[in-house]
Amino acid sequence: MDLLDDTVPGIGTYEDFNTIDWVREKSKDRDRHREIANKSKQSTVALLFSISDAFSGWLLMLLIGLMSGALAGGIDIAAHWMTDLKEGVCLNGFWFNHEHCCWASNETTFQERDKCPQWKSWAELMVGVSEGPGLYVVNYFMYVCWALLFAFLAVILVRAFAPYACGSGIPEIKTILSGFIIRGYLGKWTLIIKTITLVLAVSSGLSLGKEGPLVHVACCCANILCHFFTKYRRNEAKKREVLSAASAVGVSVAFGAPIGGVLFSLEEVSYYFPLKTLWRSFFAALVAAFTLRSINPFGNSRLVLFYVEFHTPWHLLELIPFVLLGIFGGLWGAFFIRANIAWCRLRKNTSLGHYPVLEVVVVTLLTALLAFPIEYTKMSSSELISELFNDCGLLDSSKLCGYTSNSGSTSGSLYTAMWQLALALVLKMVFTVVTFGMKVPSGLFIPSMAVGAIAGRLLGVCMEQLAIRHHERDIFRGWCSPGADCITPGLYAMVGAAACLGGVTRMTVSLVVIMFELTGGLEYIVPLMAAAMTSKWVADALGRESIYEAHIRLNGYPFLEAKEEFRHKTLATDVMRPRRGDPPVSVLTESGMTVEEVERLIADTTYSGFPVVISQQSPRLVGFVLRRDLVISLENARRHQEGVVSMSPILFTECDPPMSPSAPPAVKLRSILDLSPFTVTVHTAMEIVVDIFRKLGLRQCLVIQNG
Amino acid sequence: MDLLDDTVPGIGTYEDFNTIDWVREKSKDRDRHREIANKSKQSTVALLFSISDAFSGWLLMLLIGLMSGALAGGIDIAAHWMTDLKEGVCLNGFWFNHEHCCWASNETTFQERDKCPQWKSWAELMVGVSEGPGLYVVNYFMYVCWALLFAFLAVILVRAFAPYACGSGIPEIKTILSGFIIRGYLGKWTLIIKTITLVLAVSSGLSLGKEGPLVHVACCCANILCHFFTKYRRNEAKKREVLSAASAVGVSVAFGAPIGGVLFSLEEVSYYFPLKTLWRSFFAALVAAFTLRSINPFGNSRLVLFYVEFHTPWHLLELIPFVLLGIFGGLWGAFFIRANIAWCRLRKNTSLGHYPVLEVVVVTLLTALLAFPIEYTKMSSSELISELFNDCGLLDSSKLCGYTSNSGSTSGSLYTAMWQLALALVLKMVFTVVTFGMKVPSGLFIPSMAVGAIAGRLLGVCMEQLAIRHHERDIFRGWCSPGADCITPGLYAMVGAAACLGGVTRMTVSLVVIMFELTGGLEYIVPLMAAAMTSKWVADALGRESIYEAHIRLNGYPFLEAKEEFRHKTLATDVMRPRRGDPPVSVLTESGMTVEEVERLIADTTYSGFPVVISQQSPRLVGFVLRRDLVISLENARRHQEGVVSMSPILFTECDPPMSPSAPPAVKLRSILDLSPFTVTVHTAMEIVVDIFRKLGLRQCLVIQNG
Repeated sequence: MDLLDDTVPGIGTYEDFNTIDWVREKSKDRDRHREIANKSKQSTVALLFSISDAFSGWLLMLLIGLMSGALAGGIDIAAHWMTDLKEGVCLNGFWFNHEHCCWASNETTFQERDKCPQWKSWAELMVGVSEGPGLYVVNYFMYVCWALLFAFLAVILVRAFAPYACGSGIPEIKTILSGFIIRGYLGKWTLIIKTITLVLAVSSGLSLGKEGPLVHVACCCANILCHFFTKYRRNEAKKREVLSAASAVGVSVAFGAPIGGVLFSLEEVSYYFPLKTLWRSFFAALVAAFTLRSINPFGNSRLVLFYVEFHTPWHLLELIPFVLLGIFGGLWGAFFIRANIAWCRLRKNTSLGHYPVLEVVVVTLLTALLAFPIEYTKMSSSELISELFNDCGLLDSSKLCGYTSNSGSTSGSLYTAMWQLALALVLKMVFTVVTFGMKVPSGLFIPSMAVGAIAGRLLGVCMEQLAIRHHERDIFRGWCSPGADCITPGLYAMVGAAACLGGVTRMTVSLVVIMFELTGGLEYIVPLMAAAMTSKWVADALGRESIYEAHIRLNGYPFLEAKEEFRHKTLATDVMRPRRGDPPVSVLTESGMTVEEVERLIADTTYSGFPVVISQQSPRLVGFVLRRDLVISLENARRHQEGVVSMSPILFTECDPPMSPSAPPAVKLRSILDLSPFTVTVHTAMEIVVDIFRKLGLRQCLVIQNG
Repeated sequence: MDLLDDTVPGIGTYEDFNTIDWVREKSKDRDRHREIANKSKQSTVALLFSISDAFSGWLLMLLIGLMSGALAGGIDIAAHWMTDLKEGVCLNGFWFNHEHCCWASNETTFQERDKCPQWKSWAELMVGVSEGPGLYVVNYFMYVCWALLFAFLAVILVRAFAPYACGSGIPEIKTILSGFIIRGYLGKWTLIIKTITLVLAVSSGLSLGKEGPLVHVACCCANILCHFFTKYRRNEAKKREVLSAASAVGVSVAFGAPIGGVLFSLEEVSYYFPLKTLWRSFFAALVAAFTLRSINPFGNSRLVLFYVEFHTPWHLLELIPFVLLGIFGGLWGAFFIRANIAWCRLRKNTSLGHYPVLEVVVVTLLTALLAFPIEYTKMSSSELISELFNDCGLLDSSKLCGYTSNSGSTSGSLYTAMWQLALALVLKMVFTVVTFGMKVPSGLFIPSMAVGAIAGRLLGVCMEQLAIRHHERDIFRGWCSPGADCITPGLYAMVGAAACLGGVTRMTVSLVVIMFELTGGLEYIVPLMAAAMTSKWVADALGRESIYEAHIRLNGYPFLEAKEEFRHKTLATDVMRPRRGDPPVSVLTESGMTVEEVERLIADTTYSGFPVVISQQSPRLVGFVLRRDLVISLENARRHQEGVVSMSPILFTECDPPMSPSAPPAVKLRSILDLSPFTVTVHTAMEIVVDIFRKLGLRQCLVIQNG
């Protein structure tokens, strides 16, 4: 078999947009292992080779972790800088972002960290004065211009170089991991363009996040690095193991949550996930998070993106608002999925789809125009989230904490903040729906979390006001003393974020793990769990599938959903091809067919393979041969093997039958014959057949009746 | 089929010490679902029934969570109280433990929280004076007496009522989850006795933990509660789903780590773990943790057992000692497994095994005698661990922090502490090896962690001294200023504990998650991961299997290890029974065999089932019938169906062949005939066959050649 593999490279590979045969791939890998193991006994070189082969997996993981971590760090820094570039520039050097610029300057006080002379807004730079009526307009104008520029560049680049670079990429990766092949989807061009355009898209202020695309980026890294290891380049199944690990790495660097990443890969994207992979993705995720930490893009040397420390424990009664947030999250999830899918259909079917660039530009324009006036939409989503998560300290300058300064009574600034938040909530919702699915890299973790965080914070503040106003009521007397604040609005924001993210992606365990790796709020795992569960229940009640599955279906990828169950009772015989009454299935016989006949058979039919039987009279199954292998090896035979004419017979038998010397030489194809095809009887229940397909990852399965 | 199921209750059940057929169980469940779904369309009652059926799973999870949480809380409190009882008694009421007793008294200061007049040591109570030379001896004596009493009671109870209650139970549960049946192992008697004896064993001061057994307790709860839900009582596969969830619950209450529990169940014990189970175990673990939290056995209203807050971040260079700890953990793990297994073999084979009570008493005596003089072995393991994890504050009275008082120079008390710790390390190691596997409930999470924590703390203190002494060296200058302490010995203890636990149980992801749920040290996930990985590598290099697998093999349970891979190239035909050359496999024919013949065949052979073929002449497979079903239904026929004599034919065909009216009535057994047995051809590679068995959980698989 190996010999033939070498001579005919085509055999054992797959065409584009085809599914792989897991069983075949796995047994191929086993053969490799055995071969190496045998060789290693003979010579030292082979032994060394076998050792290096055994460790190549870990090395690959290490490289993936390093590469992804570095890329993620770069993306973070670049996006941060370009986001600030929309507002102004640093005089000390244009490459400083706002924060670093003011760090560099020494006369900054703690109170107004973000005000320092070195940082000039565009208006100040142009008009020259630092006060005046026109400044606001000029800044507004510049903000919109930059946003448009970034978005335009992003969509142009995507269109021009890598059409696969758009979207979040997670649906496609799910499909690829389930055994589908999309050439170039994880190629180097996709990687380069996606990295660049991701920065542009994020900093253009569109309502999208970089977290989803980072998974795609990590998978690209993995796929590219796979090329350097024969073990993985040659075997699609092994490659998919690596890709599962890579998706874990993606989440790990996106949120600085290694364990959450592993769980995400396990729960959400992966299809075939052995324990060994769990362990390796764990390692890769660790390395990636560690790399990111040492690059330290967030200034604080922490792994976590939004670090919060809450001081007041939560009270049992607070579970009610948390569950309410869960319900809200579920509703939002269901609504978002429906609306987004409807919008994507519209884009697909109407002429809207023909002007992707225009679409992006228009959406960006609207976003920028509406975002600038409102403080909470002007800042980037992740900044917004971290501000909403933060608990109100005494030194806190944020408007949201206006009331803590004069404790008890509420200052007006709080009300304005509330209004602005409410407005921001509506805008985020609308824009997230239209943005996701545009022809730019766009993830929806951060937008969903932003929506949830805003809603949560609103509810939290209301609860707090309620507690402050009626702290003498029986309900609050339990845990509220007049002076102290007994409710943490930041916690509500956190719970809301989790709920909304859960509603959209239907993650459960991984979601909670990510959330508390993200926030370090281990104390608050129970509220998170409660919210996540409620949200999933509500969302599932309104629609079974997550946004990713919905997009998979929208794009019509073949994906055997592992979660859904077959309710109806059908037997294998009902779904097998050909149905009863159709012409009988076309089979090859073990011997006695000529090249011409076979070729005609191939030409006439479209089956992906043919069963091989002893003879037409006694149709007992011998094996199964794949159409692709058959074609290739026939061509090969015609080309290289001399004397092969249309009349020369084809033999699948081990021993050649006696033939007259005058007859043309036979083409022996037993090597490409799969002698152990999977067979089920006509009586097998359909669920079991589906089970077999799912668990063993077959491509075909023959239905036999009495052999 | 349902009809027959009802008439013949025996069919579809399993004998003790048998493995279940997953595929059959699953399809049974699907049939149930379909039936209910169909009925629900007809009447409202049936609809309500179907709804209740759908929610019964969640209800069951809720109940399991509540019950396990409550039990765990009770065990914690009781164990805490009885552990203190060994030292003294509270005058306010004997039911107070030391801590509560001193809480009640008001004139206690923060410094010496554990010294209050209400709490009298036994010596004080008997001798009457609170000072004097004899006191120590009396306390020593009482301590040993109580320990002996507790241990004796524990082993006697186990011996008398529930032999299954001994050990940690995790190996057996692993086996049960993989489809094996051990009647009574999860019964109510086991539950009751295990709960009581667990408290006794823990408080007797033996070197064992309650964490492992809690998993067993939770599984008992689950199994008992399953009886109230037909859906789960009738279906072994569904029951195993619940049990997987229950094992998650067990860990969740053991460590207050819900997510860690779910991962533990997924990674360590479970065999068949669909996503739905993941989600439900998540819920159950949440409920359990929440119940435990509201019972609040640890005084602080926290979920976590050992809560630590470290203040100084760790430095990159510190990874070296962390990796060293990992290596130590791996070595300890490998050594422990070997030594423990060897010791268990000794117990099994020699006469030592005949005196389990004596063994327990002797070991307890030795433990108590040696433990009392040393401070760190006298206190319970979990107290020890939490003290070792704690960072040294200024108010800290622990000897371990003696040096912080006069910063820089080291006080003598530290040296004594170090010596005692070193001694404690050795003792713990020895006693853990001898203790695990005795005839009392014994878990080894806590002992392993204690060993690791001690080693880690020792290394940590050494590092700290090094840093204090040579803080001018280049290495330390980076992160050590002369005054401040730049190394956290507590962190080292934590890492060491993780490493040792990993070495023994070979957990990876779940271990890290548990550790940081346990300690809340999210910052320190990277050191934990590094240590866990090193430890697993080292341990795996020295011996593939974890302590649980080792014990499974020791007890000779059938367990198809999902991790191991088949290296050698064999074909199905080589392992199939009967081998080539043996007499042909005994088969039944579709028709024409009489009851007598079949019964003789059953009597002669020992196969667990018989293939049914069309006829001896044309041996084409029709189906497969299980021996047990055949026997039961034959008996049943003889008993109930009149006119069945030895000569009456047995029919597996659909349509009965024409027969003379004089002939005795035929026994139709098509209903018990499995029409879709799994078949592989003689050429199938063995790995694939194993794969099928593993993934589909078959009981048997027929090897066919050309049908």
